[in-house]
Amino acid sequence: MPRSTSRRRSALAHPEVGEIDLLDVMHALSDPTRMTIVRTLAAEPERACGTFPVDVAPSTLSHHFKVLRESGLIRQREEANRRLTALRSADLEARFPGLLATVLAAYERTAYERTASERTASERTASE
Amino acid sequence: MPRSTSRRRSALAHPEVGEIDLLDVMHALSDPTRMTIVRTLAAEPERACGTFPVDVAPSTLSHHFKVLRESGLIRQREEANRRLTALRSADLEARFPGLLATVLAAYERTAYERTASERTASERTASE
Repeated sequence: MPRSTSRRRSALAHPEVGEIDLLDVMHALSDPTRMTIVRTLAAEPERACGTFPVDVAPSTLSHHFKVLRESGLIRQREEANRRLTALRSADLEARFPGLLATVLAAYERTAYERTASERTASERTASE
Repeated sequence: MPRSTSRRRSALAHPEVGEIDLLDVMHALSDPTRMTIVRTLAAEPERACGTFPVDVAPSTLSHHFKVLRESGLIRQREEANRRLTALRSADLEARFPGLLATVLAAYERTAYERTASERTASERTASE
């Protein structure tokens, strides 16, 4: 069978809603860079790949997108020369009701504490 | 300060409630054996280590308990010659409200589907 002419697009595998596996989702959400990507997407519908507030090498970022995509958390599509990424919020909600919102709320608590302790540390340094 | 005389007990490190990290919890819950341990403990308060319905080597099981303990999901204590394990439900609820219940409910959906598809497959085999 001849391969698709749109080779690049066919390489982007996305699980169907009913195939989304909880353990894959948990694994995808166990990394700080991937959590930052998901939090960023929760705040806006679609975003180009190079515009996320993460500080990792392009190959590492590409790996993180792959893990997120194959877990079913994000959907990616090509448009002109850009790859656009969106959170599959509705699919996740249909598959595992309340999960994403609960996890994101839990992470916000941690993020707030982290920011607060970093601020305290930098104030301490500044006053020394 | 002198070290505790109960060296073995002091080797079982448990994070304080306020130290429980969400990413560690997500990682701990991304494995099927660890998920089975947590689901088993959700149904009963405390259990001896060798009595979990999992089929893995003792050294592997020991590793899984360590990951769960260090993430803050379980508490282990020695009593006579047994090590008893309990889920830190109240601590988890205080730290990340609703998280454990939501994740376990999500996993039950998956577990049900898996059982149903295994049953269908075995019925198909039986009728052949």
